[in-house]
Amino acid sequence: MVDVPDLVEQARQGRPRAVARLISLVEGASPQLRAVMAALAPLTGNAYVVGLTGSPGVGKSTSTSALITAYRKIGKRVGVLAVDPSSPFSGGALLGDRVRMSDHASDPGVYIRSMATRGHLGGLAWSAPQAIRVLDAAGCEVILVETVGVGQSEVEIASQADTSVVLLAPGMGDGIQAAKAGILEIGDVYVVNKADREGADATVRELNHMLGLGEARAAGDWRPPIVKTVAARAEGVDEVVEALEKHRAWMEERGILAERRSRRAAREVETIAVTALRERIGDLRGDRRLSALADRIVRGELDPYAAADELVAGLTQG
Amino acid sequence: MVDVPDLVEQARQGRPRAVARLISLVEGASPQLRAVMAALAPLTGNAYVVGLTGSPGVGKSTSTSALITAYRKIGKRVGVLAVDPSSPFSGGALLGDRVRMSDHASDPGVYIRSMATRGHLGGLAWSAPQAIRVLDAAGCEVILVETVGVGQSEVEIASQADTSVVLLAPGMGDGIQAAKAGILEIGDVYVVNKADREGADATVRELNHMLGLGEARAAGDWRPPIVKTVAARAEGVDEVVEALEKHRAWMEERGILAERRSRRAAREVETIAVTALRERIGDLRGDRRLSALADRIVRGELDPYAAADELVAGLTQG
Repeated sequence: MVDVPDLVEQARQGRPRAVARLISLVEGASPQLRAVMAALAPLTGNAYVVGLTGSPGVGKSTSTSALITAYRKIGKRVGVLAVDPSSPFSGGALLGDRVRMSDHASDPGVYIRSMATRGHLGGLAWSAPQAIRVLDAAGCEVILVETVGVGQSEVEIASQADTSVVLLAPGMGDGIQAAKAGILEIGDVYVVNKADREGADATVRELNHMLGLGEARAAGDWRPPIVKTVAARAEGVDEVVEALEKHRAWMEERGILAERRSRRAAREVETIAVTALRERIGDLRGDRRLSALADRIVRGELDPYAAADELVAGLTQG
Repeated sequence: MVDVPDLVEQARQGRPRAVARLISLVEGASPQLRAVMAALAPLTGNAYVVGLTGSPGVGKSTSTSALITAYRKIGKRVGVLAVDPSSPFSGGALLGDRVRMSDHASDPGVYIRSMATRGHLGGLAWSAPQAIRVLDAAGCEVILVETVGVGQSEVEIASQADTSVVLLAPGMGDGIQAAKAGILEIGDVYVVNKADREGADATVRELNHMLGLGEARAAGDWRPPIVKTVAARAEGVDEVVEALEKHRAWMEERGILAERRSRRAAREVETIAVTALRERIGDLRGDRRLSALADRIVRGELDPYAAADELVAGLTQG
């Protein structure tokens, strides 16, 4: 068995191996998961979680790397969670252009972790929030959650972030694609990357139009900014950080940040509760209570709905 | 609102419209579902449920029709549930060659119902057992449950029957297909239909081999019989009924019938309980208890697992 308090203390001091170990524990639903989560709880709630989504080819990985650099410049400790919903490999696997992240490999102020979710119990909804908690407790002040690959899960990632960044690039028909995927509704900040390419201004205009940014808004409403970047040359990246910090301040002033986090926590509790209840019912297979109820149904003394009521009532008495 | 006791009484007297109405009520998860199920319970447990599975083309529909005739000859009231897992249409829809069933349309001792399960909450596992209970309470002494179409659901159908009949036909490579689908493990009685065609004996031999029927078995073990039929000319169908009645007697002597029905009821209760718990958790969205727990997580006072425990404990107190 792992010495959980010791491991948490080491992670708190920023030791990467302790952080890696903790993420593996929470990701794998180990028997010590509950002990780990209980130990982490008082250390969490300090990190600012930024979700990065966008179609392949928009330069997500390069943008993440540039954002790490920008946040390091202003002295923030950064955690990165690169989630690949299509891959069964987790942990050490450096996926594709993740190699670029090696710029930060020797920086003790940066922790990068890739996470696979395929085949996981509950998938993303289950494992990402736990890993975010570990990074939070380990003292990461900013956590960048990036999807590797495509899919609906982008929306799921965004729902777990404090602020969602939607990345686009010129001439990829991204506007339409983004609209189809529903990611236009989830952006708090929009980034048009590869802005040195032809068509960048057209993409910004199209986006402006689709987001209805020209229309009047109620005073105090958040108007998602569109930032042009060339992430490969770090151009415009400080402006992205600025936009993020503005959004964060806007949310904090209005209590929206706490609200978002609370809703997120509520969904997480729901997921865990449903899974726990399923397991308890599973445990009852072959149990006398369930088979006694079933026998009464066969004899016509009870209908299955009344039996289910009795079963549910019995569940909390252990 | 429907007068449930009156409707149940009418169904008990065999009025087809009352039966149809009750099935619609249980299928659609109406608010009166519970009242219906409670009223039906004491009237159930008398029907013998026979599942019919087999690939398209083996003559399932013709066999079902022939079995109805055979059972009517010995004075049994027959219910038929034709389940189409791929169709969104239920009730009145006469699917494809279901028209052949019109032979029995004017017979008050036969009730035929087709049932769609696509899109249904819980699908087959949910709605078929309830419909079977209605037919049972309505006085059907034999209930034939037939799958229309192909798929994994065949195994599910079989799991809801007292006796499972697997249908095959010569020269269709059925043996291998059946093995792939896992239906070779679920047959209590095997029928090689279209036995006047070339290759019927080869199919019987192949089946014999695959089932290991030549091997020694413990005394008292059930040895699945293989019956050759030409359902279109009603040849061999009385022998199928004989095989079914033998299997039923064999199960009754050993208490196996009650055991199977009990296991089936247990699975059903589980399904209903899980769904009910999910709904209760769903009801808690926006509820103060869940949001209070979520707020405590955000403040770091509680971890999500401990919160889920509290939520689950709270569920049974209403």
